[in-house]
Amino acid sequence: MKCNICGGAGHVRLPHFNLKVCDAHFLQLVERRVERAIQKFKMFDRASRVLVAVSGGKDSLSLWHALHRLGYAPDALFIRLGVTPEVERAQALVQKAAAALPGRLHVLDATSYFGGASVQEVARMLRRPVCAVCGLVRRYLMNKFACEHGYDVLATGHNMTDEATALLGNLLHWQDGYLQRQWPVLPKSHPRFAAKVKPLALNYEQDIKQYAVLRGIEHLEESCPFAAGATSRLYKRLLTELEQAQPGIIGAFYLGYIRRGKIQAEPVKLQDCQQCGYPTTIPVCAFCRLLEQFSRKRKVAFSSDSAEAQAS
Amino acid sequence: MKCNICGGAGHVRLPHFNLKVCDAHFLQLVERRVERAIQKFKMFDRASRVLVAVSGGKDSLSLWHALHRLGYAPDALFIRLGVTPEVERAQALVQKAAAALPGRLHVLDATSYFGGASVQEVARMLRRPVCAVCGLVRRYLMNKFACEHGYDVLATGHNMTDEATALLGNLLHWQDGYLQRQWPVLPKSHPRFAAKVKPLALNYEQDIKQYAVLRGIEHLEESCPFAAGATSRLYKRLLTELEQAQPGIIGAFYLGYIRRGKIQAEPVKLQDCQQCGYPTTIPVCAFCRLLEQFSRKRKVAFSSDSAEAQAS
Repeated sequence: MKCNICGGAGHVRLPHFNLKVCDAHFLQLVERRVERAIQKFKMFDRASRVLVAVSGGKDSLSLWHALHRLGYAPDALFIRLGVTPEVERAQALVQKAAAALPGRLHVLDATSYFGGASVQEVARMLRRPVCAVCGLVRRYLMNKFACEHGYDVLATGHNMTDEATALLGNLLHWQDGYLQRQWPVLPKSHPRFAAKVKPLALNYEQDIKQYAVLRGIEHLEESCPFAAGATSRLYKRLLTELEQAQPGIIGAFYLGYIRRGKIQAEPVKLQDCQQCGYPTTIPVCAFCRLLEQFSRKRKVAFSSDSAEAQAS
Repeated sequence: MKCNICGGAGHVRLPHFNLKVCDAHFLQLVERRVERAIQKFKMFDRASRVLVAVSGGKDSLSLWHALHRLGYAPDALFIRLGVTPEVERAQALVQKAAAALPGRLHVLDATSYFGGASVQEVARMLRRPVCAVCGLVRRYLMNKFACEHGYDVLATGHNMTDEATALLGNLLHWQDGYLQRQWPVLPKSHPRFAAKVKPLALNYEQDIKQYAVLRGIEHLEESCPFAAGATSRLYKRLLTELEQAQPGIIGAFYLGYIRRGKIQAEPVKLQDCQQCGYPTTIPVCAFCRLLEQFSRKRKVAFSSDSAEAQAS
């Protein structure tokens, strides 16, 4: 097998691009697609203060690496959502990655907002799905942290396969609001709403996986056990099956959506949460309501100003 | 199992409606959804001259039956696309259905346009996919026949599962033109373009199948062998898998699209075909070009005015 670019020994097969490439050209291709996403969607520039949300998985750690290699200077944020061996393992991997990179790693303990309870415990106590509580807590704390520490932009590791999966789900249910907000960039629309970007949005998931392997980026292999029954898993499996039958369809689907331009919708009216002041569409934001419900159950008051919740 | 409507013995489980019903209420439900589609989309009324395109399959024969039961007076058109045992079998089933219904059955021999060649032979000779040639020939001849015989509207047996499948394919590839034309009604936009309607568009495929069984409508069991590798088959299989995991999603998906309203697009500019005068977007229509190519191969001139092509 020959590299279609340099003619040297090729090792990586990319059916979705109808291409075979050598390791060096594969790595270049992935990083160029990261750069292209950053430029195309005007995500940030080399002077920007970028914070990458890292979980210990292949996507976020690859993103952190790739941004450094492309000449950006991102810091990273790891949020501890519990005190399980998985969390320790994830943190160890993130710290290992940090040791090899110049940027700073922040570690934020989400459990300190809940008197030491993990998101699983909070979810169980309030009889809510773990995925929903975890997502809510992570989104809130990432945004709060980015704003409080003066970052221009918060970057997450969503790849093109993730985005196509979300798009499929949003189209199957015609979720206009989500369809609109799914764009690879959400600008800073409020003083306490950090800009959000997805620089991996032009890269297939399998390519990011291969990138992590070739760059020697150690990462958690398994996906989150709580997401096992999630419908997004089903959508991703069906899209993957389609991709095998029609290589390139995930890209055609996602990029076709991008090419059509943002779906028009009424702009969402934001107000300041009466409790924490962060932007929300309702009087008290979902995070503060979660804290309230949890406080009532536990009969102890918890607040989003939790003095314990300090980044390391 | 009890019927959720009358409390009598229920036999039919409809997970997509979260309903169990007896045979009588099932039949009523299917027919009411046919009537609802006709009213909702203003397809036609009881004075309209309706032509149902019948193939011998469950959908078109069920549609023909249901329209009669609902007090409409449709005729039917069967197009012979070859001279195989399958065609004879389909025609026999259609004729059996016709014997039990008051309307008239027209039989049109498509092979007479091609000097006796079947669509398979035409496709093979011109190295084009059978499905594409067959669809082109059927669409052209159904429209021509409906116009020449003064029918107000041409009804086809597309069910909701078919429509959701086409919608998924059109969204995956962002086929704006098809997305727009996929509406359950296409009005008469030209003197030689018959209105097209899909009165089964609110019924699940499995319900039509069950309807045919309960009404004792004999039909071809197998689907067309030429469609085996079609991507639409794959899309339908994936949608069916989704439906099993999330009963009702096919309906939510299709009806959500309907609820959003027609997708806006530039109106297609129609002109009269220089050969046959039927509306087309190009100087010579696809059917006449097919005839030209076939004539060249066979070294005999074939024309869309073929004197042999007469309805029985």
